[in-house]
Parts: sequence; C-alpha cells; structure tokens
Amino acid sequence: MTAAPLGPCCIADYERLAADVLAPGPWGYFAGGAGDERTLRDNVAAFERRSLRPRVLVDVSEVSAATTVLGVPVSMPLLVAPVALQKMAHPDGEAGMARAAAAAGTVMIVSTIATSTPAEVAAAAPEAPRWFQVYSFRDRGVTRRLVDQAVESGFRALVVTVDAPRAGRRERDLRTGFAVPPEIDMPAVTAATGGRAAITPEEFFALVDPSLTWDGFAHIARESSLPVLVKGVQTAEDARLAVEHGAAGVIVSNHGGRQLDGVAAPIDVLPEVVEAIDGRVEVLVDGGIRRGTDVLVALALGARAVLAGRAPLWGLVAGGEEGARHVLELLHSEIELALALLGCPTPGAVTRAHVN
Amino acid sequence: MTAAPLGPCCIADYERLAADVLAPGPWGYFAGGAGDERTLRDNVAAFERRSLRPRVLVDVSEVSAATTVLGVPVSMPLLVAPVALQKMAHPDGEAGMARAAAAAGTVMIVSTIATSTPAEVAAAAPEAPRWFQVYSFRDRGVTRRLVDQAVESGFRALVVTVDAPRAGRRERDLRTGFAVPPEIDMPAVTAATGGRAAITPEEFFALVDPSLTWDGFAHIARESSLPVLVKGVQTAEDARLAVEHGAAGVIVSNHGGRQLDGVAAPIDVLPEVVEAIDGRVEVLVDGGIRRGTDVLVALALGARAVLAGRAPLWGLVAGGEEGARHVLELLHSEIELALALLGCPTPGAVTRAHVN
Amino acid sequence: MTAAPLGPCCIADYERLAADVLAPGPWGYFAGGAGDERTLRDNVAAFERRSLRPRVLVDVSEVSAATTVLGVPVSMPLLVAPVALQKMAHPDGEAGMARAAAAAGTVMIVSTIATSTPAEVAAAAPEAPRWFQVYSFRDRGVTRRLVDQAVESGFRALVVTVDAPRAGRRERDLRTGFAVPPEIDMPAVTAATGGRAAITPEEFFALVDPSLTWDGFAHIARESSLPVLVKGVQTAEDARLAVEHGAAGVIVSNHGGRQLDGVAAPIDVLPEVVEAIDGRVEVLVDGGIRRGTDVLVALALGARAVLAGRAPLWGLVAGGEEGARHVLELLHSEIELALALLGCPTPGAVTRAHVN
Amino acid sequence: MTAAPLGPCCIADYERLAADVLAPGPWGYFAGGAGDERTLRDNVAAFERRSLRPRVLVDVSEVSAATTVLGVPVSMPLLVAPVALQKMAHPDGEAGMARAAAAAGTVMIVSTIATSTPAEVAAAAPEAPRWFQVYSFRDRGVTRRLVDQAVESGFRALVVTVDAPRAGRRERDLRTGFAVPPEIDMPAVTAATGGRAAITPEEFFALVDPSLTWDGFAHIARESSLPVLVKGVQTAEDARLAVEHGAAGVIVSNHGGRQLDGVAAPIDVLPEVVEAIDGRVEVLVDGGIRRGTDVLVALALGARAVLAGRAPLWGLVAGGEEGARHVLELLHSEIELALALLGCPTPGAVTRAHVN
Repeated sequence: MTAAPLGPCCIADYERLAADVLAPGPWGYFAGGAGDERTLRDNVAAFERRSLRPRVLVDVSEVSAATTVLGVPVSMPLLVAPVALQKMAHPDGEAGMARAAAAAGTVMIVSTIATSTPAEVAAAAPEAPRWFQVYSFRDRGVTRRLVDQAVESGFRALVVTVDAPRAGRRERDLRTGFAVPPEIDMPAVTAATGGRAAITPEEFFALVDPSLTWDGFAHIARESSLPVLVKGVQTAEDARLAVEHGAAGVIVSNHGGRQLDGVAAPIDVLPEVVEAIDGRVEVLVDGGIRRGTDVLVALALGARAVLAGRAPLWGLVAGGEEGARHVLELLHSEIELALALLGCPTPGAVTRAHVN
Repeated sequence: MTAAPLGPCCIADYERLAADVLAPGPWGYFAGGAGDERTLRDNVAAFERRSLRPRVLVDVSEVSAATTVLGVPVSMPLLVAPVALQKMAHPDGEAGMARAAAAAGTVMIVSTIATSTPAEVAAAAPEAPRWFQVYSFRDRGVTRRLVDQAVESGFRALVVTVDAPRAGRRERDLRTGFAVPPEIDMPAVTAATGGRAAITPEEFFALVDPSLTWDGFAHIARESSLPVLVKGVQTAEDARLAVEHGAAGVIVSNHGGRQLDGVAAPIDVLPEVVEAIDGRVEVLVDGGIRRGTDVLVALALGARAVLAGRAPLWGLVAGGEEGARHVLELLHSEIELALALLGCPTPGAVTRAHVN
Repeated sequence: MTAAPLGPCCIADYERLAADVLAPGPWGYFAGGAGDERTLRDNVAAFERRSLRPRVLVDVSEVSAATTVLGVPVSMPLLVAPVALQKMAHPDGEAGMARAAAAAGTVMIVSTIATSTPAEVAAAAPEAPRWFQVYSFRDRGVTRRLVDQAVESGFRALVVTVDAPRAGRRERDLRTGFAVPPEIDMPAVTAATGGRAAITPEEFFALVDPSLTWDGFAHIARESSLPVLVKGVQTAEDARLAVEHGAAGVIVSNHGGRQLDGVAAPIDVLPEVVEAIDGRVEVLVDGGIRRGTDVLVALALGARAVLAGRAPLWGLVAGGEEGARHVLELLHSEIELALALLGCPTPGAVTRAHVN
Repeated sequence: MTAAPLGPCCIADYERLAADVLAPGPWGYFAGGAGDERTLRDNVAAFERRSLRPRVLVDVSEVSAATTVLGVPVSMPLLVAPVALQKMAHPDGEAGMARAAAAAGTVMIVSTIATSTPAEVAAAAPEAPRWFQVYSFRDRGVTRRLVDQAVESGFRALVVTVDAPRAGRRERDLRTGFAVPPEIDMPAVTAATGGRAAITPEEFFALVDPSLTWDGFAHIARESSLPVLVKGVQTAEDARLAVEHGAAGVIVSNHGGRQLDGVAAPIDVLPEVVEAIDGRVEVLVDGGIRRGTDVLVALALGARAVLAGRAPLWGLVAGGEEGARHVLELLHSEIELALALLGCPTPGAVTRAHVN
C-alpha cells in the first residue's frame, strides 16, 4: 500500500480547487445562480432522486462511449457547454478549452460571450467539431455577423439560447459588484456594444432582443446554412413548438440555474420534453452533470447527450487546457465504466428501463 | 470589476438587518409564530416544493406587473398586508409605510392595531388606494366607529380577519414578556379598551368577539358601503361560505403562522380554495412571500394577488419609509423580471400551466 | 414591555429541565427508546407530517375540552399514560401524579411497575378516576392479586399491555448499566419476584407471560368486573381481534418507541385501526404527544382521546406534583385554544375533515 | 443501578471501533463505496423508509430464528457475506471468521479474494456449512481450479458474483493510494496473476472476465456439482433470466455500494425480484444490514435470508474471531427479539403483511 499524494480525482475536487484559485467576483459569476440558488442546487440534487437499474451478465468486454450528436461523431455523449469569459477562468481561455475538447474527442460549444473570436477558437483545434452559441441581439446585424464568422470558421451548428430575454437576478454578482474586468476582451460583445469596456451581466443581456418569438427563431433556422438547436426549453409545449419551427435539436436547460430561480431541474423536465419530441429531433440536456452516472441517467431518460459547463470550466480554472482535458477524460472514463457496470456496451444500449 | 460595498439586495438581507436593529421583544413579536413555529417555517418552505414552468420565445419586450385587485389598479399583484404596531418597527410607522406603498403604486392594508388613526394614514398618502383591516370587537360600537373612520378617510375596502377569535400561543412573546410599550399609542385599541396602556397580544385578542359567525360576517358585509374581504380562510368549505355570505374577496392566510400552529402553508391550500371559489370573487393569499417568483407561483395557482407583511416591515425597520419603499421596489422588479423569464408579459398571462 | 424571567412554557422546556435534573441512568430509562430510537423520534415527527384544517367564523365563545372516555367524564381528551417508577422521577411519585391528574380533571393510568401500591395511589386522590395498567405475568396469581387490589382501590378500568412479551432492546439502559435503584420499591414487582431488589428492565419483562394470546386476553376480559382495554395495538388486524375478544377499548401504541424499533408512529397507524374498529369501541392513542395541536390531530383521525406519558413525567421530574399539574394544565389550555382556533367548541366537533 | 463500563452493544459501536483500529488505506477499502457513496449510504437509509407491522398476543414463548437456506440448516436467516482480505482486517482472518460463523450456527461465504485457501478455511471449522464466492476469471483455468478446491474442501454452494466486470470507482482507495499490502497473501489471486504481489482493486478486477453472459453462467451452473447462486441481481428482468439459466438462488446485491454508484438500495429492489422469481428459487439480499429489524424487513419483503458483510467484519477488526462471533451473536439475539416483538415465533411466520 502506498500513500501517494494524489491530484483531483473527481469533479468536486476540481470545484474546490477552482473556488480556491478564483477571486470572489469571477468565482461568484461562474459558480453562482439566480435568486436563492434553489434551482442551482436542485440541478445537482435531482440526480440523487433517480436510481439506475443495472443489468448483469451482458458482454461488456468491448465498451465504448462513442456516439453521434446531430450526426457528429463524438467520443462520448457529453459536449462542452457554452461558458462565457473563459480567459477570466484561465489565460488559456477558449483556445485551451477547444484543444481540451478536441483531445477528449468531443464537441465544444463556444459562447457568444467568448473572450476569443470564432476564428481564434477554430485555429486552436482546427480539426475538432465545434458549435456556436448565439443570442439574438436587438441589433440583428451583430447576430448576423457573428453567425457569418462562425460559418466561416467551420462551426457545424448553431445553438440559440432562448431563456435569457433578460439577465437573471444573480445576487452573488450584485454582492461582489461584478463586472467583466477591463483587461478581458469579448470580441462579440465589443462588436455589439461598439467597444464598451467593463460590462455587467445585466448590461450584456440588455443587448439581447427580448421580443424574439418562435417565428423569429424559425426565421433564423431557415436562413442558416447550419443546423440550429434551441437551448433553454423546459416544457413539453415549447418542445413541440421547437420542432414545428425548425429546430434541429432541443437542449433542455435552465441556464445552469442562472436565469429564473424556482424552476425544476432539467433532468426532471427531460421526460416530458422527450415524450413531446417523440424522436423527431435529438434532445440534449444540461445542468448538474458531475458524474458519469449522471450522464447515463440522462440517456436513460431519452437524451442523446448532455452538455457540461461548470465541470470542464473548473478544470480550466485549476489547470488551464490540461485541467480541462483531465476533467473531460475523467468524465469519459466514468461514462465508460458506468456503461460497463450498467450492462450497456454503448450509449445506444441504454434504455428507459435502465433508470427508475 | 469593482468590489463596491453594497446595501441589502433581497428580502432576506432586510430580515437580517431588522433582526439586528430591533430589541428582543419587538423582534419576537414581529418575527415569531405560534407554538413550535412549524407553520411559520412551512409558509416559506412551501414555495420550495413548487416549481415554475417557464415558456420561451414569447415577446417580453414590454413587461408590466400592473394589474387590478377588486378593480383597484396596482403596479403589481402584491399588496402591503396589515401589520400591527408599525411605529414600534420605526418612528415612520404607518404613515411611512403608506407613503412607501403609494410610491410603489400598490395598496396598503392598514391594521386595526395601527399606531396611527385611519385619518393620519390617509393624510400621509391621500391619493393612494388603501384598505382597512378590522376585527369584529365584542363591543360592536368600537368596530362601527373604526369602520366609519375608515370610510370617512377614503379607505376603499374592508378586510375582516376571522382567524383570531383568540390569540395564538406565541411563545417568543411569553419568553420576552412582550407587551406593547406604553409609549406606543394604538388609537383603535385605546378606543376599544377605554385607554389602557400596556397590553399583551393575548389581552388584545380578548377584546375580539369569538362568537362571530358567517351570519355576523354577512351582516357586516351588507351594512358596509365598501367591499368586504374575509381574511383567514384555509379550506374549500369556508371559501364557499365566504362567497355565499357576501365576501367581495377571499384572503387565504394563516395569519403568518401566528395563530394555530400545525396548519398547512397558504400556498398549499390555495388550490382548493381557488377551485371552490370558481372565479366568483378574487382570491388573495398571504404568508411566506419573499421573492418575486413566490408571487408568480401564487398567481399560477389562481391567486389574483398576494399580500406581503413581514417583507415591507423589515424594510420599514431597517430604513423607515425609504426602506419599505426599497423593499416594495425590489419585489416589483423581481416580479417583472420573473414575468419576463416565465414568458408572461402581464400577470394575466400566468396560468395554471406555469407551475408544477 | 417587561422582560420578566419566565418559567417553562411548553413541554419541550420541561423536557430540558428533566434532562438536567435526572442522573444518566434514570434519564436514559425514561427518555430512551429501543434500538436506534428511530421509532422514538418518529413518534414525535409524525405529527409534523400532518396539518390541521381550521374552520373560521364558528361561534367559539364557549369552548370546552371536556369529554368522556369509556363513559368517564374528563376535562380534556388527554389521560396520563402509565409510566413506571415515578418515585425515581421525583419523591412525589405516583401519589403526586395522581393528585396532579385529579387537579387537572383527568384519568391517571397507574403502571404495574409503580413505586406505590394501588391503595396508596387511590388514597392520594380518592375522588379522581383512575385506571390500572397490567401485565399478564407468567405467574397468574400475581396478576390476579394485582387486579384485585386495583378493584378494591376503586380503579375503574384495566389496561392490558400486550406489546411486551419481552423487553425491547433499550441501549441507553445497557450503556448506563441501568437497574432500578435498590431504594426504589416496586410493590407489584416485589410481589412477582418474591422480593428481589435491583432489577433491570430485561429481568422485569422476563416475568411477563410471552404465551398470552387473544384467547387469554378474552379470559381476562371476561373474568374482570372492570372494562378491559388493550394497549399496544398497531394493526387493523389486531384491532378487529381486540373487539372480537372483548376489549372495551383499544389503545394504539408502540410503547413510546421502547419495544420494537422500526415500527410506524401511532398517529400513522391510527387511521387503519379506527377504520377497522368502525365505532364499536373507543380508540385511544399514545406516543409523541407534545402539543395541544397533536391531540387535535389524533381526534381528527378518530381517536377518542390520547395518553401522554413523558409530558407529565417531565413535569413530575422538574417540579413534583406541582410540575406535573402545570404540564397537564398547559396541555389543557393548549387543547382548548387549539379547539377554538380550529373552529370546534368541543372535542366532539372535531372531524376527519379537520386534518389533511 | 450500576454504571458498569460496557463493551460494544450494537453494530454501530463495532463500526466505530473498526474505524479507530484500521489504518486509512484498509479502512477506506472496507468501509468505502463507489463514486459519491450515495448508494453506500442509501443501502442503510432504505431500511429507515420501511416500517414493521407488529402483531400482538401471539404465543412467543418459544421463538427460534432457525431456518434453512438452500436446504442448509442455519441458526438464523443471516449468513456471512463474502468479504475480501480478512487478514488485512485482523490476523485471525478467514479462519477466525469461519470459526465465528460456525459458533453462531450460520453459513460463511468465503471470498475469492480470501487471504486463506479454501482448504485452510475448511480446516478452521470443518463441520460448519460454507459456501464459496467466485469470479469468473478471464483465465477459465483459474476459476476451474478454485472451484475444484472448494468442492474438495467441502464447500456446499457456489456464489457467482456478476456485478463486477470492472472495478467500481472507489475514490477512497484512490485517495489513500490503496493497494493490498505485500505481506497479505491472496492465494487465489496469486494463482490468477502468477504470483504478483501488491495489487489494487482495479488491477484485480481486470482479471475478471467482462464477457461473461447468462449462457456462460448457465454453463458454470451445469458443470458444477454444487448449487450455484448468482450474486448481484438488481432487476426483475435479470431475476427471471437467473432462474431460466439454472441459478439455484438469487442474491439481490449492489456489492455493498462499491460498484455502480447511483443504484437503488437492495431492499428497495427486493420486491420486484421476489415477484419475478415467484417462489421458484430462494432469494437472498445483502447491503445495509445493521440490525435484527433490518433482517425482518427483508424477510417480510420475501427474502429467505440476508447476507451481512461489514457487520461481522467490524467484529473481526475489533476483536478477531471473538469480535466476529460477538457480532453474529448480537445479530442473532436481535433477530430473535424482533421476531418475538413482531409476533412471529419463526422466520417462516413473517409475511408481507408484517411490513409497510
């Protein structure tokens, strides 16, 4: 028996490291949620209310977490969620995260509030699949130019976030007086604001068009040369509307508990969305993913894959590109192990009967 | 990023300030509940058991919390609940609260146990809508004179509290030996008692008529030139009786957990009351409101509006009229934000489908 | 406002006083339960899972908690449960408790493991109604002589405890090495053992006949000139058997959590027992009663009355007869207040509709 | 009353002693579970969600916990679960445990990862019934030789563990850097590895065949001269397959929470397994057994008996053979007492109606 000192061995370890490393403002911005953070906590706790039903004596000598999402091959049913301001997390920023995602074999979804241009992220990992998250700005030209850049830079899908017609009430930010530090450049936001430096989350979301409707979304989807997913759906009703208005995929999300406090955890609304979608498009889910077993719960409830935001972010904070890569590898190995122990050689083998 | 020192940014902050400011007796009186305070706690906790179902891609470029309550236009579906002894909270007292409610554009309901006369409260904010809360005293003349004063002072509705034929067992008051300080004048109570100074809650409620029945209520409602609401209904049975006996509105309430410990939270009994009322009169609810999202839960379950008592009271304690106004503005902005994020441009757009 | 120092104002206060006063052995004996004390805790917690449904605008100018139990008039639907070794609680012992119960206007049920003879208890409060709790000893003669003494001393009913064919595993007693102190005389037990001094709970229950069946109970009931209640029923099946075998009343009880850990709280099994009994005999319940509202929950679920053991015991520990009397008065006043606030002028007005 | 110092009087006491005695590595190995140890905790907590329904006035003058399991007479419906590395717990090791189980009159199931040979364990308690737990190794010859040794050494049944095609993610082991200390010999593992010394749990499970299917199991069952039980079933589906493929018994188990975190407690899946098996073979269950009452819950839900692993292990750690024997005697006496208080003279008298 050796008592070797050991590095972080789970996402919670990385979260603790990130809490130590970051200043209160950025930590509050990344870790916090809206209001009383009830939804923030429940996003994680909801997984504890589910239990897996493992099958035994299935041949799991060959287990692979590989799957496809919207036809894009990925090493595992877990994508890197759009997270803003990654250079505020670590100088490696989005470029580091892109290389980490590429190394882990999965898709990175780049945020509109990135601290790098789409082209810079593309250059960091040219071969890797990447998607672009967009807000529909009041100034449609800004959105159009952003999307054009993403198309030019080889992004393969657009993710339109629809749960933020206004900023959620994030009280940690209010308490720390958080605004984006002036040395952190956000090219898309700078374009949208005409160059303004420090900006608070509230100021940013004031740029987003609160009048966008499903017709507006349908317009974006029709105009786009890329498949367009809608992110932020939380009801069966909206899931049906999404399909009817041309969404190529639906991402069940409550914006990581950062928008409207008091909504249900995504994993709890996933079943009604999956039922409403009825296989017409792929359903993804984000919020509260901390373990490989969480991913399998999502698959069993009908998700094609999950998005993880804070998990790889804590890796980036703690160790830059290498930290993010380690987190993604950790999740990959946890997913594969969980598949094996669930009696499922592939993600496609996971069914509704694998969860209570 | 600026690390600006910040004032209170939510109701809980104001509650903490109030706990620091008040002496143990008044703090216990205002903050405490009956018995083991199980209901007091549950009034708040019940909201955590509900979750909102937000709709997306609704045009929320124009959001307004404005509505009407019994035909009275208000800026938001939140009224100031009747709270006794406001000069014990802060020298600004009911006059300050009336100005705060007026500034916030909502109705103040003045308590019979006010430390100002109806006329004084009216004078503080002559243009603002105000309602008067009454107990039916053993001495009917006292009640009649009070109601007459309220009518003369331009109050627009009466709220008859029916859950207090006796004082609840408020053990914080027993432990602090609480009685109203002699320097605090309660004009209505002085009239009822013939001028007695220090009085305990038990002594006050001994003045209230415990023999009042629905017929007695019907008599009050018939005699009154104002609409009469009944406050303290907790069952479908009584909700039906209220309508049958002429109530112009029903307020679901357990008196802030101060009367009978062990009853359900108002938000949990609201659905049965709403169903029993079946749209015949408006249903209001009070107890445990701390957030804009709580208000939306109440609307989704069928309430026309909510009453908030302790929330603006903590504002009054912490900062007098200005504190109360800030609390009401905070709630107003939380309600509007929650409406936007719920996909509801107006309170009227909130439906049963917006809550689980 | 006066900040008068105050004595105990609820049962929990008395419990804290008792914990301070008693030595670890007696405290553990009285306060403890079996096994992990899961049932002990749940007996109390079960009341928190119920909520009352108060009706308003009922004339409660005259409220009385008075009722009858098996035809015996009592001031309230709360009897003093049989509790062993009361002189170990306080020198006033069972005589003090009998005077306290008499003053409070209710029935005292005297335990077989009393530290006074039936005659001594009777002499302490000759006019008051009293019942006698019996175990069926292996030596039938012991039981017969005890019952004879009770009859001679004017006891009005027998309560046969049937949940203790063996002692529960009370680990507090094992840890303190508890045995009845030699100076504490237990006349009935001395008669049963032929005079042995120190005795552990396990040694005592070894004297009880573990072969007693419903036929044996029926025999006792037939032979007795007094009504015989059965104490310790926890299922609908046994409730039906009780009536069929001549029980004059059924007491739902798990022996205060002291016998089999892991059973449900009495208040949770009360409904199935009440349904099974279907009004043929009166149903009482004990376990976890700490508040007047607890009593009303029991009434609403169909109990005729409750038994309280530890509550008056903590009074006896803290203040002898006077303490026990204060506890009973406290409960009486809490019951009356709760009746008033529930809209029930009498115990008979409480119905199933008054509880969720 | 004597205040005698007292030894451990329940399993929790032994667990505390073991935590004090063991070094962090072995303690983490024995006590720990997979992932966040949610299942580890829930295995115990699940019993708290059940309640027993005791029947009274049953003749329990003669109570015996004795029963049979697969036809083997045992003193109680509790067997010693297979636990690895018992010499790491205490020098008495498996031989001491075998003597303890023999003294307690029950079956010991010896682990493949034992630190003694099957012959050595047999020699320690030649007359006692013993079963052998096997993994199906990638190298079938290893398994065959192990089984042959077990047969030669008079083992009476085989238990094939099927929930470990890979090692669970046991983070306590990762944090302590746990590997089996070199001085601890594991004869079967040594044979499987060709003599390699230090080995981690992950390295061990890499030897196990992850391609084994129900057909493979059926082959083992057919080839064996002994009855073969399958350990690790958690679903009705697999329970049916087990019977169809020749299992002589089914053990509901999640490997003590050490394999896939996030699965349900065994006691919660027991009912679906029992229903699926429908009496065709005996069903056993392990996980979370700490009390005699837990055993009765399992019986009431349809188990023939339970397996206890950590409970006797803590006894072995704390006191070697004698400690293990005391734990088993403690459990035996708790089971008998619980039977008496449940109104069941024998395990066979326990029915589904004895549990909620």
